[in-house]
Amino acid sequence: MKKIFLSEQDMPKTWYNIAADLPTMPNPPLHPGTKQPLGPEDLAPLFPMALIEQEMSAEREIAIPEPVQEALKLWRPSPLIRATGLEKALGTPAKIYYKYEGVSPAGSHKPNTALAQAYYNKQEGVKRITTETGAGQWGSSMALAGQLFDLEVKVYMVKISYEQKPYRRSMMKSWGADIVPSPSTDTEYGRKVLAADPDSNGSLGIAISEAIEDAVQREDTKYTLGSVLNHVLLHQTVIGLETKKQMEIAGDIPDIVIGCVGGGSNFAGLAFPYLRDKINGADIEFRAIEPSACPTLTRGKFTYDFGDTAQMTPLVTMYTLGHTFMPPGIHAGGLRYHGMAPMLSHVVKEGLVDAYSFNQVEVFDAATLFAKTEGIIPAPESSHAIKGAVNAALEAKEAGEEKVILFNLSGHGHFDMTAYDAYFAGQLTDYSPTEKDLEVGFASTEGLPPA
Amino acid sequence: MKKIFLSEQDMPKTWYNIAADLPTMPNPPLHPGTKQPLGPEDLAPLFPMALIEQEMSAEREIAIPEPVQEALKLWRPSPLIRATGLEKALGTPAKIYYKYEGVSPAGSHKPNTALAQAYYNKQEGVKRITTETGAGQWGSSMALAGQLFDLEVKVYMVKISYEQKPYRRSMMKSWGADIVPSPSTDTEYGRKVLAADPDSNGSLGIAISEAIEDAVQREDTKYTLGSVLNHVLLHQTVIGLETKKQMEIAGDIPDIVIGCVGGGSNFAGLAFPYLRDKINGADIEFRAIEPSACPTLTRGKFTYDFGDTAQMTPLVTMYTLGHTFMPPGIHAGGLRYHGMAPMLSHVVKEGLVDAYSFNQVEVFDAATLFAKTEGIIPAPESSHAIKGAVNAALEAKEAGEEKVILFNLSGHGHFDMTAYDAYFAGQLTDYSPTEKDLEVGFASTEGLPPA
Repeated sequence: MKKIFLSEQDMPKTWYNIAADLPTMPNPPLHPGTKQPLGPEDLAPLFPMALIEQEMSAEREIAIPEPVQEALKLWRPSPLIRATGLEKALGTPAKIYYKYEGVSPAGSHKPNTALAQAYYNKQEGVKRITTETGAGQWGSSMALAGQLFDLEVKVYMVKISYEQKPYRRSMMKSWGADIVPSPSTDTEYGRKVLAADPDSNGSLGIAISEAIEDAVQREDTKYTLGSVLNHVLLHQTVIGLETKKQMEIAGDIPDIVIGCVGGGSNFAGLAFPYLRDKINGADIEFRAIEPSACPTLTRGKFTYDFGDTAQMTPLVTMYTLGHTFMPPGIHAGGLRYHGMAPMLSHVVKEGLVDAYSFNQVEVFDAATLFAKTEGIIPAPESSHAIKGAVNAALEAKEAGEEKVILFNLSGHGHFDMTAYDAYFAGQLTDYSPTEKDLEVGFASTEGLPPA
Repeated sequence: MKKIFLSEQDMPKTWYNIAADLPTMPNPPLHPGTKQPLGPEDLAPLFPMALIEQEMSAEREIAIPEPVQEALKLWRPSPLIRATGLEKALGTPAKIYYKYEGVSPAGSHKPNTALAQAYYNKQEGVKRITTETGAGQWGSSMALAGQLFDLEVKVYMVKISYEQKPYRRSMMKSWGADIVPSPSTDTEYGRKVLAADPDSNGSLGIAISEAIEDAVQREDTKYTLGSVLNHVLLHQTVIGLETKKQMEIAGDIPDIVIGCVGGGSNFAGLAFPYLRDKINGADIEFRAIEPSACPTLTRGKFTYDFGDTAQMTPLVTMYTLGHTFMPPGIHAGGLRYHGMAPMLSHVVKEGLVDAYSFNQVEVFDAATLFAKTEGIIPAPESSHAIKGAVNAALEAKEAGEEKVILFNLSGHGHFDMTAYDAYFAGQLTDYSPTEKDLEVGFASTEGLPPA
């Protein structure tokens, strides 16, 4: 429980783009129709040009615009904390540090990119932003960013979440966003889904399709995405850049860097600035932690696939369970994604990053141990990283090694207490897809270009 | 949105006891039975001797034990933030600063005293702590403190809150506390209440009685209270002591210091270190903000009264609506108390602190303006202080004066989103007690010793 604060003056002025340092490059994204490499113009209906340039940039350092730096100061720099309470409870000789991103108003790392995306859209004259949200973390981050940069925000929220997570909804309302349950009657695609199934619970795939349809049909509107894309991972590198300065103050260099992965952005945000050191010869181990219920990196295929169920996105090479794979309703809603950021997939494929998966009950065991020893009640997603750190610390104990472990605590669990309720009531169950489940998912990638 | 951080080395090493500087002293507390001034031995069944000494101390500075300092570092020092977004929205020449206590794991200022109380109990061999909680802020703070100082914690939670606020309950569970709905079958008093009314919703008065009964009946157990008492206010002065250093860094001196008041502890925590300056001649205005629905300071009587409904506590002089007054169910649950800390009541009586009251709809107007401009979603209680600051800033605008306004943002609203839901749905109503309501409450103080 030793906190290392940075001053605002020590915040990074540039983002770090790992594309500049990769030994090999990922495959180019392909147009979903022509299957030809994508040009900037293909993305122009969806994103402002500045973000498209970042998406394709090979520059090592990209300047953070002054107004984005200012807005990030709302909660950044975030603290780095030495988990002395957890260390003691584990009886490990390892030092455990965590970067705490739950201090943002929305409670996670997501606003780091939401602010930047809002800024660039505003700069290019966009008046209105659409996006989708499942559990609500991303939607609320975009609502906040829209409020701060004076953009209208329309959030298509997966209907089942809309009904089950009223608090996230009120949070978005507090920040002035317009929220509709998806499928909605506001888009042609939504009406089509409702016509076929008036009681549809919705899905992230449907919500994405609605948000995209809305964006491309209005001149004043563009679309935003909260993970997966290169520019999103880029914006998250403020996490790792701050952490490097804080670890210097602490006088330690991490041996193991750990994060949970859904789309990959919080992991990449912490890890990529350190991965640069590894590429340059440093001896650092990277562990990406995913749920056993959605084992994209540990059991997925590395191939070209669509980012969404409706096949509207470009084709990208990534680890994927297939774009029709339906992960079970585990409580770590933010980690239920069939694919993985192409840039992160690439470094896993190259052997620079290792992947691990854990079941949700053991993850909640780690979460409650953390809450008891460090005070903070962690988000179910972030608790995967905690479980990863606990395991690494116990390995160090076993080996009698004074390892330095660093993980990203990407968010707090204040809006996830129903998950804790279920855990305390003994109602959580573990789930791993069968070989058959995976085959069904993989089938949807057949016929797509090989990686 | 300019944050001023302190380093851990700059955290206060002593608490500030305003008793040392008061021009006049409050009346002594009286034994509820004998009506004679209370001695330390009267409190010994409930509290450890170190806290009883603090309760009665006239020492200006009381050392914060090293282990309490260490535990406070879990989240302290808390940030001081210049509310530039709010200033801009109001178009005021005033500078608005707020101290943000919502960064604690429990989400408010309450753990500042919970940790200290847990420490002293542990020191004197206590194994187990009882307490009551209404909305759950105090119960969760005590649960956290018990976890950190290795004490069992039993929380009697008002039954209606127990049912309506399952998330606060799970938070307490995460920190290892034992929680029962009050009235419970675990105490004689609880069984008596249940026998008379099996469907009783419970009340803070009943929960206090249960927690006290439990504590006095077991050798290994003592009782803790989250506000009102001198030692609680004392422990909260870390807020003001940190803030003074941070305001020095900011290069400003507050003209107006503002806080919300329920029992009085968060207000006193920020204000008392500045009140010392006022006593010594500084020109500072103090504004204590309460809900119109429970107008203890603005419409109450200054007299001896009981702290609880069941007349088990000592008699203290304070502003009170009468110990039988039942405040309506406003969303700022933490401000629904018939009395007010005797020490705070005393400085209001002496004209050192002014009191204001606001209705809940105008308070939520201020809360949502704050969320939109500063990002943080505030607790309904703390939003009373925001409303106070907004009004002060608008007065400064009207007068064309560059006032420096400082307020305490005592907590976040992550567990109060149902209140925001009701506000957005237009379902919030204002309420002020009628003269008749007040007369009924005051009647319960008849026959008690005059102040």
